[in-house]
Amino acid sequence: SEVKKIAVIAGDGIGPEVVAEAEKVLKVTEEVFGYKFETEHALFGGIAIDEKGTPLPTETLDICKSADAVLLGAVGGPKWDTNPKELRPETGLLGIRKALGLFSNLRPAVVFDCLKDASTLKPEVLEGTDLIVVRELTGGIYFGEKFRRQSEQGEEAVDTCAYNVTEVERIARQAFEIAAKRRGKLASVDKANVLETSRLWREVVIRVSADYPNVELEHVLVDNCAMQLLRRPSSFDVIVTENMFGDILSDEAAMLTGSIGMLASASLGEGSYGLYEPVHGSAPDIAGQGLANPIATILSLALMFRMTFGYEDAAAAIEAAVAQVLDAGHRTSDIAVDKSKAISTSEMGDLIVAAI
Amino acid sequence: SEVKKIAVIAGDGIGPEVVAEAEKVLKVTEEVFGYKFETEHALFGGIAIDEKGTPLPTETLDICKSADAVLLGAVGGPKWDTNPKELRPETGLLGIRKALGLFSNLRPAVVFDCLKDASTLKPEVLEGTDLIVVRELTGGIYFGEKFRRQSEQGEEAVDTCAYNVTEVERIARQAFEIAAKRRGKLASVDKANVLETSRLWREVVIRVSADYPNVELEHVLVDNCAMQLLRRPSSFDVIVTENMFGDILSDEAAMLTGSIGMLASASLGEGSYGLYEPVHGSAPDIAGQGLANPIATILSLALMFRMTFGYEDAAAAIEAAVAQVLDAGHRTSDIAVDKSKAISTSEMGDLIVAAI
Ligand SMILES: CC(C)[C@H](C(=O)O)[C@@H](O)C(=O)O
Ligand SMILES: CC(C)[C@H](C(=O)O)[C@@H](O)C(=O)O
Repeated sequence: SEVKKIAVIAGDGIGPEVVAEAEKVLKVTEEVFGYKFETEHALFGGIAIDEKGTPLPTETLDICKSADAVLLGAVGGPKWDTNPKELRPETGLLGIRKALGLFSNLRPAVVFDCLKDASTLKPEVLEGTDLIVVRELTGGIYFGEKFRRQSEQGEEAVDTCAYNVTEVERIARQAFEIAAKRRGKLASVDKANVLETSRLWREVVIRVSADYPNVELEHVLVDNCAMQLLRRPSSFDVIVTENMFGDILSDEAAMLTGSIGMLASASLGEGSYGLYEPVHGSAPDIAGQGLANPIATILSLALMFRMTFGYEDAAAAIEAAVAQVLDAGHRTSDIAVDKSKAISTSEMGDLIVAAI
Repeated sequence: SEVKKIAVIAGDGIGPEVVAEAEKVLKVTEEVFGYKFETEHALFGGIAIDEKGTPLPTETLDICKSADAVLLGAVGGPKWDTNPKELRPETGLLGIRKALGLFSNLRPAVVFDCLKDASTLKPEVLEGTDLIVVRELTGGIYFGEKFRRQSEQGEEAVDTCAYNVTEVERIARQAFEIAAKRRGKLASVDKANVLETSRLWREVVIRVSADYPNVELEHVLVDNCAMQLLRRPSSFDVIVTENMFGDILSDEAAMLTGSIGMLASASLGEGSYGLYEPVHGSAPDIAGQGLANPIATILSLALMFRMTFGYEDAAAAIEAAVAQVLDAGHRTSDIAVDKSKAISTSEMGDLIVAAI
C-alpha cells in the first residue's frame, strides 16, 4: 500500500521517551498489517529554542506540511517559562496550529476501568462517562489582536475575540458529524447571554443543525457546563465550543475521568490531515527516568490511524493491545497501586508491541 | 444606632419566597440586637420587564443608590429567555453591576456537613474545602466593545476584553486583604501564556503582592485551575480572577461542594456598599410552591451584616441559627433525604427566626 509520511516531534521532558515507544508500535503495525510509513523527526518547543533559537523552526513546519500527519510528544518546561513571548514553547504551539490550519481539537474523555478509582468523583457518578470535547482551535481570543495602550486609568491591555460564520460553521459541522457517529447528542457551549461571538456561534450552530435531524442539540452556557460536567458527566456525548472555553472545559472533563495520563487527542485540519498528541504535559520532573507512561501517546497513534489514514484495523489492534496489557495487570508507576511492581516506559511499550 | 437602608429586590421565580424569609430574619435581628433597618422594595429582572418594560428601571437604580446595601433574590426565567437583548433579565444584571460599581464578586464555596453526600466528589477529597472566589465583575470581555462586521469569510462577531492597571489593582488588593484575614493563601488565575490582559493582570498582582508579604501567592493558569479544583479543592483558600474566568470557576467551585443551594454571595463596590444574593438561580420550576430553600438568601443577609454594616454579632447569630436548625435535622425538600419529612420555605424561615 501507499507510503504514509508521519512527522515525529518528540519535544521536551518525557516527550522523547513516550514517542520512542509509539514508534515501536508504528513499526510493528507495519509488519502485522502491511502498511508502510516513513517518519521524519523535527525539532519543536523548548529543544528547538535551545538548538535553533525559535520554538517553531521553518524546517519543522516544512516537515509537518509535507507529511500526512504529525505525532507530537509534549512541549514546554520551567526552563523556558520566563522567556520572552517569542521564545516560549506555547508560542510555537499556537504557531503550529495556525500554520497547519488545525482548526479542530478533539479530546475524548473516557474512563479506563483500571483508573476508575483515580478519579476524585464518586464511581457511581462517573459510571458510563464517555464524552468528547470538540474545541475550535485557530480562532477566538487566542488569535485576535492583542495590544497595550494608555488609558485614563493607567496602562490598559486588550485582547480581541472574533469569530466569523465560516469558522463556526466548519467546527459545528464536524461536531455534528462526530455526534452522528456516536450517541447522537451534541451540547454546544457558549455564553450567548453576554458575548456577541457566542450569539453568532449559536445562530450558526442552529442553522447547521438543520442538516443533522438525528442529532439532538442542546445549548449550554459555559458556566453551567462547568457545573454539569461535575453533576452528570455521563450524560454528555459530544461537546462543541470555542477556543478559550474549550481549553478550560476539556481540561476539566479530562481530569474528572481520573484517566488524564492515558488520554489521546487529535488536532485536525482540512481533509484528513491531523496532529496527534497525548493530553498530558511534558512532566519535566520525571523526564529521562523511564517512569513515564507511554499509553496516551500510543493511543494518539491509534487515533491517527483511524482518523487520518482510515486504518481502523490497526487502530483497533493497538487499542485492544493496550487493554490486554492493562487487564494483565501491568502498570507504569503513575497508575500502579503498588509502585514497587511498576514497569518502565520501555517495558510498557514492549508489552503493547508484543500484544499486537 | 443609625438606621441602615436596605434595597430589597425580590426578583423572579423563587426570589420573592426566599427574600420574604430573609426579611423575617432582618426583623428579628432588629429586635434582638437593637439595630435599625429601613427596607425599600424595587422591581428588577423579568418582573420589571413585564411591569415597566425594562429589566432595570431608573427608579430601581435610584432606590439601590440611596441604600447602604442591596438584598437580591434571583432573576430570570424561560419566559424572557428569547427576548431581545435589551429586554432580558441578564442585561439588567450586567447593568446594575456597572451602575452600582460592584467591581468585586465574592463567592465562598464551603461544604455544609449535612450536604457532604450531595457532592459528586469523594468525601475524602472534599474534606476541609473552604474557599472563596473573588471575581472581577465590571471589566473584561463582559463590558468591552461588541459588534458585528462583514469579513471575507462571512459575517463576523467581535468581543473586546480590556483591563487597565487600576481595575486589576483594586480587585487584587481586595483579594489580598481577604486572604490575609483567612489562611493567607491566594491563587491568582489567568491565561498569561496566551492573553495580553492576563499578562497585565499578572504584573499588577505581583506588584501588589509586595504589600502583603504574609500572603502566599501562586499563579495558576485557568485551564489548570479547572483541573486543580477537582483534584485538590481543599488546598485553595482565596482565588482571584477576571470576570469571564471567574464566572466559570466560581460555578465549578460551588458545584463541587455539593452545597450550591445553600451558598451566599456578595458583590461589592467602593467603600462598604454591596449587593448580596444567593448563588442559586430563580428555579422557575418550583416557584410559588413553598418548596424553595431560603437558607442561601438568609446567609446572604448575614454576609451583608458582616461586610457592609460590620454587625459581626448579628451575622454570627444568623449563621449559628442556621447551623442549629440544620443540626436539629430540619430540611427543605431540596436537601431532604426523606422528602416526605421536608418542611416548607416559610417553616424553615420561622425555625431560623426562632433560633435567633
Ligand atoms: C499551552 C497552551 C497555549 C495550550 C492552550 O491554551 O491551547 C494548552 O493549554 C492546550 O490546551 O493545548
Ligand atoms: C446571568 C449572567 C449574565 C451572569 C454572569 O455571567 O455574570 C451569571 O452567570 C452570574 O454568574 O451571575
